[in-house]
Amino acid sequence: MNKVVAIQGIKGSFHHQVAREYFNENVSIHECLSFDTLVSSLLNKQSGMGVMAIENSIAGSIIPNYALIDSNHLHITGEHYINVHQNLMVLPGQKIEDIKEVYSHPMALLQCKEFFKQYPFIKLVEDADTAEVARRIREKNLKGIGAVASKTAAELFDMEILAPEIQTIKNNATRFVIIQTVNSVLPEEEINKASLKFELDHKRGSLAAVLNVMSDCKLNLTKIQSLPKIETPWKYAFFVDVTFDEYSDYAKAKAILEIMAEHFKILGEYKNARI
Amino acid sequence: MNKVVAIQGIKGSFHHQVAREYFNENVSIHECLSFDTLVSSLLNKQSGMGVMAIENSIAGSIIPNYALIDSNHLHITGEHYINVHQNLMVLPGQKIEDIKEVYSHPMALLQCKEFFKQYPFIKLVEDADTAEVARRIREKNLKGIGAVASKTAAELFDMEILAPEIQTIKNNATRFVIIQTVNSVLPEEEINKASLKFELDHKRGSLAAVLNVMSDCKLNLTKIQSLPKIETPWKYAFFVDVTFDEYSDYAKAKAILEIMAEHFKILGEYKNARI
Repeated sequence: MNKVVAIQGIKGSFHHQVAREYFNENVSIHECLSFDTLVSSLLNKQSGMGVMAIENSIAGSIIPNYALIDSNHLHITGEHYINVHQNLMVLPGQKIEDIKEVYSHPMALLQCKEFFKQYPFIKLVEDADTAEVARRIREKNLKGIGAVASKTAAELFDMEILAPEIQTIKNNATRFVIIQTVNSVLPEEEINKASLKFELDHKRGSLAAVLNVMSDCKLNLTKIQSLPKIETPWKYAFFVDVTFDEYSDYAKAKAILEIMAEHFKILGEYKNARI
Repeated sequence: MNKVVAIQGIKGSFHHQVAREYFNENVSIHECLSFDTLVSSLLNKQSGMGVMAIENSIAGSIIPNYALIDSNHLHITGEHYINVHQNLMVLPGQKIEDIKEVYSHPMALLQCKEFFKQYPFIKLVEDADTAEVARRIREKNLKGIGAVASKTAAELFDMEILAPEIQTIKNNATRFVIIQTVNSVLPEEEINKASLKFELDHKRGSLAAVLNVMSDCKLNLTKIQSLPKIETPWKYAFFVDVTFDEYSDYAKAKAILEIMAEHFKILGEYKNARI
């Protein structure tokens, strides 16, 4: 089995933290500067597993990542949660008044929007990764430029934290998924969560009927989201996460839903990280 | 009644286009450079109505805007759809190789991500508004800088379109809502759509039970989304849009749901723009 784990970003990024917490130390890390290249590295077998942020407390689901998993026929084989703490960091010895531009990943900038309202003279610039900006500032000795990144990144690249924990929501839980090109890497008795996708015709009550089946089969809904179908605006698909105690209950629901719903697809079967 | 309409962005923006198409000409436009200031202008009565993007084919729902409507107790009193076409524009006479930075609204940059992959030497910078960047480039005579904005903005500020319709999804339908501090500005017979919010306890089948009531009352679901509760990670609320033929059917469902669901709230009752 390919033990290379692809992460979005470089070492010191939040994806790297997830990889370290989820896997034991026997994996090597493949750094990717976008989710697209992360997916490519799985498809061309450079990596065996990938770590991908999928949902957080502020922006909700990261829809483009759902689309990447779905359209590339990848599977969710695990999940992991961390509390994301963002910090403003610069080359040592500078003050906030010296900073003209701050670079980071778009999601990190969004999470710190409130903090930067106090400093309208700072221009926020989107970049590929949180930690990579810290590395670049250090390598090129960039004065007047800040990064928004993790404490680990500040330590790794010897940056000074001007303001710690600047994200608006202090308890910013983020859900990451482990993705692979294969499904169901776990034995059935260890599986107690699944991510499903299906489409329904616009008949009244069709979603209620599906949820009734799930409820009758003792599945618990932990997430539901209707999503516009790309290139077919305003036709919706549904993404649903369910948890269960017995795999046999889930197997029964699956057999019924395959008949009831259109384009029924299992995005992944894995172990619930929130028990 | 206050006939001032607040828009995100300046004249020439997509919000301005929506305001012109939705309202007759008897309104004046109040330009706001963020959704936060747009909401403030409604709350302090500078404006009587606001136009706010809420959903598009790529990113799905714009969750932070749902949060703004909900937390400020605003109401949706109408909706409007347009196809958003993004264009790369510069001061006349420049080539794509001359452009070092392109500024626009984060959502516009996201929509054009694929296009800019061909030009890795161009830095993408987030800004408050699409049209405002075009205006600034013209006013300050900025060479080497591009804007991503509407055709109208290019005409208004006499910019040259280097590349037209650069958004990834060609048919990029975007849904806008009209928001006010009051609800139900329409007579009941004109109302055939509603946006609802509620919370449910984690008992199995609780969402199915709610959807059954809606179906029994002849409501059609056009959107459903479970959302993390801010500051209470992984506790979920539901945002649901329903359409109906008879207001009396909706009134009946409403009476039952107020009893069944926690914190049941009507975000708005309005006229369906998609018939």
